[in-house]
Amino acid sequence: MLEGLKEKVYEANMLLPKYGLITFTWGNASEIDREKGLFVIKPSGVEYDKLSPDDMVVVDLDGNKVEGRYNPSSDTATHAVLYNAFEKVNGIVHTHSTWATSWAQAGRGIPCYGTTHADYLYGEVPCVRNLSKKEIDEGYEHNTGVLIADYFKENNIDPVAMPAVLCKNHGPFTWGKNALDAVHNAVVLDECAKMAALCEMINPNVMPAPKELQDKHYLRKHGPGAYYGQAEK
Amino acid sequence: MLEGLKEKVYEANMLLPKYGLITFTWGNASEIDREKGLFVIKPSGVEYDKLSPDDMVVVDLDGNKVEGRYNPSSDTATHAVLYNAFEKVNGIVHTHSTWATSWAQAGRGIPCYGTTHADYLYGEVPCVRNLSKKEIDEGYEHNTGVLIADYFKENNIDPVAMPAVLCKNHGPFTWGKNALDAVHNAVVLDECAKMAALCEMINPNVMPAPKELQDKHYLRKHGPGAYYGQAEK
Amino acid sequence: MLEGLKEKVYEANMLLPKYGLITFTWGNASEIDREKGLFVIKPSGVEYDKLSPDDMVVVDLDGNKVEGRYNPSSDTATHAVLYNAFEKVNGIVHTHSTWATSWAQAGRGIPCYGTTHADYLYGEVPCVRNLSKKEIDEGYEHNTGVLIADYFKENNIDPVAMPAVLCKNHGPFTWGKNALDAVHNAVVLDECAKMAALCEMINPNVMPAPKELQDKHYLRKHGPGAYYGQAEK
Amino acid sequence: MLEGLKEKVYEANMLLPKYGLITFTWGNASEIDREKGLFVIKPSGVEYDKLSPDDMVVVDLDGNKVEGRYNPSSDTATHAVLYNAFEKVNGIVHTHSTWATSWAQAGRGIPCYGTTHADYLYGEVPCVRNLSKKEIDEGYEHNTGVLIADYFKENNIDPVAMPAVLCKNHGPFTWGKNALDAVHNAVVLDECAKMAALCEMINPNVMPAPKELQDKHYLRKHGPGAYYGQAEK
Repeated sequence: MLEGLKEKVYEANMLLPKYGLITFTWGNASEIDREKGLFVIKPSGVEYDKLSPDDMVVVDLDGNKVEGRYNPSSDTATHAVLYNAFEKVNGIVHTHSTWATSWAQAGRGIPCYGTTHADYLYGEVPCVRNLSKKEIDEGYEHNTGVLIADYFKENNIDPVAMPAVLCKNHGPFTWGKNALDAVHNAVVLDECAKMAALCEMINPNVMPAPKELQDKHYLRKHGPGAYYGQAEK
Repeated sequence: MLEGLKEKVYEANMLLPKYGLITFTWGNASEIDREKGLFVIKPSGVEYDKLSPDDMVVVDLDGNKVEGRYNPSSDTATHAVLYNAFEKVNGIVHTHSTWATSWAQAGRGIPCYGTTHADYLYGEVPCVRNLSKKEIDEGYEHNTGVLIADYFKENNIDPVAMPAVLCKNHGPFTWGKNALDAVHNAVVLDECAKMAALCEMINPNVMPAPKELQDKHYLRKHGPGAYYGQAEK
Repeated sequence: MLEGLKEKVYEANMLLPKYGLITFTWGNASEIDREKGLFVIKPSGVEYDKLSPDDMVVVDLDGNKVEGRYNPSSDTATHAVLYNAFEKVNGIVHTHSTWATSWAQAGRGIPCYGTTHADYLYGEVPCVRNLSKKEIDEGYEHNTGVLIADYFKENNIDPVAMPAVLCKNHGPFTWGKNALDAVHNAVVLDECAKMAALCEMINPNVMPAPKELQDKHYLRKHGPGAYYGQAEK
Repeated sequence: MLEGLKEKVYEANMLLPKYGLITFTWGNASEIDREKGLFVIKPSGVEYDKLSPDDMVVVDLDGNKVEGRYNPSSDTATHAVLYNAFEKVNGIVHTHSTWATSWAQAGRGIPCYGTTHADYLYGEVPCVRNLSKKEIDEGYEHNTGVLIADYFKENNIDPVAMPAVLCKNHGPFTWGKNALDAVHNAVVLDECAKMAALCEMINPNVMPAPKELQDKHYLRKHGPGAYYGQAEK
């Protein structure tokens, strides 16, 4: 069932330790088949060097396991809510990567201090609040997704232009057009988080990059006027 | 004698440089056979790339060598005291890992700033005081163990829920259900120590994570209501 | 066409990820054939592990593609302006390397705090201002080159003695007598940027190295009285 | 001539990039044959991956080349002065390692904040002043050695107990009973420099480790009462 997708999700998950984003089993990647309304996600707590594509778990959009020998990631309910809310997002990644998690722990969004950030993340990466005790008790992982989705909706943020969020005292989620793209954005996020922290260390009074520079870099890579890279066939 | 345990302790010790926790010979791992009342520990000051399982040293719970061609680790007396005090602990690790040692040198416990920490370490990682000159002269390594054990007892801290401690101006000890688990906790501790320091750099006024979030993450991994990972057979 | 130069530029580009200066496709190296008035540069947005020497693009000094199956780097116009302005510069590199980019984002030039810096970079590495919206709209990459060239001219800085610049909120460019030398200077710049930031962390009141020490180190490596290394044949 | 010593010095030099202490050619190691009054040192500015034992240069205690196809390290005169001044020192290393150099650039000695430091370096690692313009002009490398030797003599510091020094705005020298031991101390110094900086970041009001703890750790590894490691045969 969904063998091709399992292979892709497996490979995306295996990139997380390769890029240094993951210690032990602290993360997960998924990708959705929009036609079937099913997504594939890493099993919970299985060591990376023991994983195979067959171990990936198939889940429906209510977060219920459809197929697989293992329990799906404990964060599955968060993925399900995000796939329901963000229609153009087809891949999701969660990590505890060092620098993005440090910003999340600090409870701060990551300002856009330069073009590295602007090339991929349009504006400040938001940091959403803690869940209340009631929200935690009622459904921690589900409500994490609801909180993120509501925040983007209420603040009119396009999840395609801002493919990342920090959850306060927890860590980052990133997404993209597939699982591989979500991994790519997780790498970008951690590097930008690192450079933003170092930049504030070097100049405590630093201001975000001018809006016109942010626009220029984002729009030379994205949208109808993009000219970075090679034309796709 | 205890060949299987020597093999396990050897492998746990070899993971320390692999995970980047150890420079040269600065660390040691041990594991106890509770039935026999003996534990196996790394020899003192032997280079990692020259070690073999046969070089591991067998020691009794008074810290006396029972078998082995080498002297046991200079920290053997600390291990012995901790095995006597912490009945559910069967593996112990000592390192000078960069970030945990920096907190120890700073003389501060590590606050719980997020879920990465809460998943493994229930509350603030304590930092115990310096030994007095008298305590050092009477038995430095033995009294280090006594200080740790007394601190946990006096402050009513469960060593299973808090498998780590910092010794002021020295470095960390971690423990677990076996040597491998103690190594795992040593890796977790150093990563959490790193992210706590970076998080304070990013936000000097940061507060610890809310109690209900710490509870949620610790308890979804530990205890009767745990649902992280796969059910153990 | 220019097969030998393509090979050299390919190899210089491949050193960028090897030295840890590049994440994904965030950088480019070029080298010029001064006699032909043509330079060779990396294609835009192609992954490093898929590159071959044949993929390098030949460009003229107006920044127009002369040969190649791919579009040249989006920063090609910057390289072209710099080759026109800096006659003794024959290789150029652009990266988003972590520490140099953090200084660029902070909007600060890098003071010369020691001999590691002075050995290669004669004085403070300048940080040029943001382009105005008008300059961005008229020709972002071209005007980036113009800004750098004008800054060096107006401030009477010799690009041979100062083979590096930071662009505010963006990142560094370095150059040298060929592409390999420009890569070398990119490595030096990032290491000096790192040590300058750490040095300010250790001593917030630090002052630049004395002029006579800077002179000594630069001049024992460069110019008629140099005695570092082996005499070139 | 001195083939065995050349082999040892070659191997010590090759460890410098292996341990991450050296970028490009920024460092050198030497060792002395006290009976012959000659020492062997790395050639100046030759890339590490092109070195062979035969390339090592033999120098006398006035710093004059005795044998070798290459020029000796530009820092040869410093090594010569130190071998003359420190009779029990038989190996010397100079690097621009990141953290030790950052302290040198900051112009501060490295306080002893913990036992990692105390195990090898007895007290604060001193940072010597800048040379005057006159001292630079008269003989930069020679006077660097004189400055270090005088500082140790005037301050009654035993170079065996303190096998490291920082030169302001420059970088560290370390030494030991042979070249390999000097490399070992260079690794220790950089790790202690790193942890001291991080420790001050975590607690800006940190104080050095108590004297009795420093004594305990230094003396359990060194001198007549040492009990760390295995008895030497």
